[in-house]
Amino acid sequence: MINREWHLLSRPVGWPKPEDFALVETPVPTPGEGQVLVRNKYLSVDPYMRGRMSAAKSYTAPFELGKVMQGGAVGEVVASNAEGIETGDHVLHFFGWREYAVMDAKHAVKVGPTAVPSVKVDADAQDVPLSAYLGVLGMTGLTAYAGLLRTASFKEGDVVFVSGAAGAVGSEVGQLAKLLGASRVIGSAGSDEKVKLLVEEYGFDAAFNYKNGPVAEQLREAAPDGIDVYFDNVGGDHLEAAIGSLNQGGRIAVCGMISVYNNTEPAPGPKNLARLIQTRGRIEGFLVGDHYDLQPEFVQKVGPWVASGELKYRETVVEGIENNLEAFLGVLRGDNIGKMIVKL
Amino acid sequence: MINREWHLLSRPVGWPKPEDFALVETPVPTPGEGQVLVRNKYLSVDPYMRGRMSAAKSYTAPFELGKVMQGGAVGEVVASNAEGIETGDHVLHFFGWREYAVMDAKHAVKVGPTAVPSVKVDADAQDVPLSAYLGVLGMTGLTAYAGLLRTASFKEGDVVFVSGAAGAVGSEVGQLAKLLGASRVIGSAGSDEKVKLLVEEYGFDAAFNYKNGPVAEQLREAAPDGIDVYFDNVGGDHLEAAIGSLNQGGRIAVCGMISVYNNTEPAPGPKNLARLIQTRGRIEGFLVGDHYDLQPEFVQKVGPWVASGELKYRETVVEGIENNLEAFLGVLRGDNIGKMIVKL
Repeated sequence: MINREWHLLSRPVGWPKPEDFALVETPVPTPGEGQVLVRNKYLSVDPYMRGRMSAAKSYTAPFELGKVMQGGAVGEVVASNAEGIETGDHVLHFFGWREYAVMDAKHAVKVGPTAVPSVKVDADAQDVPLSAYLGVLGMTGLTAYAGLLRTASFKEGDVVFVSGAAGAVGSEVGQLAKLLGASRVIGSAGSDEKVKLLVEEYGFDAAFNYKNGPVAEQLREAAPDGIDVYFDNVGGDHLEAAIGSLNQGGRIAVCGMISVYNNTEPAPGPKNLARLIQTRGRIEGFLVGDHYDLQPEFVQKVGPWVASGELKYRETVVEGIENNLEAFLGVLRGDNIGKMIVKL
Repeated sequence: MINREWHLLSRPVGWPKPEDFALVETPVPTPGEGQVLVRNKYLSVDPYMRGRMSAAKSYTAPFELGKVMQGGAVGEVVASNAEGIETGDHVLHFFGWREYAVMDAKHAVKVGPTAVPSVKVDADAQDVPLSAYLGVLGMTGLTAYAGLLRTASFKEGDVVFVSGAAGAVGSEVGQLAKLLGASRVIGSAGSDEKVKLLVEEYGFDAAFNYKNGPVAEQLREAAPDGIDVYFDNVGGDHLEAAIGSLNQGGRIAVCGMISVYNNTEPAPGPKNLARLIQTRGRIEGFLVGDHYDLQPEFVQKVGPWVASGELKYRETVVEGIENNLEAFLGVLRGDNIGKMIVKL
């Protein structure tokens, strides 16, 4: 049996190029004592992976050159030498970018209705599909939840602005804010189609296409009374605009700055940081890895909203391990609507 | 009897010019029922006053054109129609930029050893001089205390960096950090003389002259293991350097950005804000006015250190109401060492 997996060959400079990577064939590994062999069904591709392709010291170790990359994945256990996990179980783990993975049982978390019973709220509610554990109920969703509630100290009545709002994290931030009592939720995205989706499907109060005009002007129009919370996925002009519209005591949670990740020369930052003084404003970065303690609370609270359809999500599904890299580049370009998933 | 007071005639564009102001003679006012007449002895001049000279909406109302400006002052009560305040009492109030002031008794706070007994720690300790209530034990000191402890969440063992460190706020920040258990305190200032003062008199562990080379390089040298807290008085290059040296969980309290106050074109902000994500760093602005609740705790704790000489401070004293404007401009230029005081 053959396994295929994606290796990083060289560290991308600027935009990642196909020759920085290779899809390599290897034998399917055999699980040792206490290990399981998982056949992956869904792979996650996320913007943060760009950071791990660089050598720079960061919050996680860089991917190693000549080795398989990593990422969230959900798969089916096809062989088990571990107690408590059986063949046929579905597990969430971190050995993505490959078809088959061997891991110690402690790195595999059982998912699905039997693993998280609270997600099935009543007999009529649909089960949550497996791929949801890579997105709306997984790391993506926890990122939205922790950033909004903990880092941005969201409270009922807040006006919330989120950039990259049609993305997996952004669309969940906006909907969670509404479900939790925001007085107004504003999103920005990069196409008119996405803007329509935000308002018509996700229930944002207002949304704009940042390519249609200066962000600061469009934000002032969409939030005439200012904003209390900004959930930043993009940095750059958006961050400057948010600081400009920040109300007294406003909080900015910095989740990502996708607008600057592929810059080879660092771009200048916001010109209006001095506004933080008069507004007593706060800008704070966060990483979901610091907030795994919230995961049970998060699944308890948000799982039923997903199962009932109150919290909507979309997936852009790309098929086949051979398209894993292209799917990742698509996320960086913003091709996806909702969570980008690779289905094997 | 003649009173002299400084009026704002026009809103300065860029650097304030003498013709934007006038020293005006008026009759000494008479206190009404419940009011006191105070002859000012010491006037405060502070960088934040530049903000009030502009029309822009800010945290306090702009100074009115054609009217006397305001600021902290300490004076002697020379006539009282108010209960509880007697002729001869010394009071702290907010009617500076003038020789004589009339005010409701509620706006006058009695100061001196009898008003704050805890400041006199033992029979040998010197009394705290009146001018201290404009600086080291006044709004200046509370700014240092609140920004360090509340906004920057200072804790024992932190490495602390402060810019404008030879200034009134900065020198107190550094000394408080040391007295409260910082593992290392680093300051920057704009002359070799000030740098010497920081290390030799105020007990900073390291200090550098930001005019002698790039701030980022000098900071890395002075704080090879990074910084946990940055107390920002200047913005610009200093802020960028601090973000670059920020440790995991680092906190930046933004007190002022004197480097940008007189810019007519806003300067670009720090290029490295994305570092806030991996460091989980925080940048937060604050205004001392939100932290007056800390004043009693602050005077209780810091007063004895001032009286005993453990907390050192300097004043640059300019004499005469006619030099009030020049003293203020001197603060913007950085002419002062320690708190700039105008003595009448």
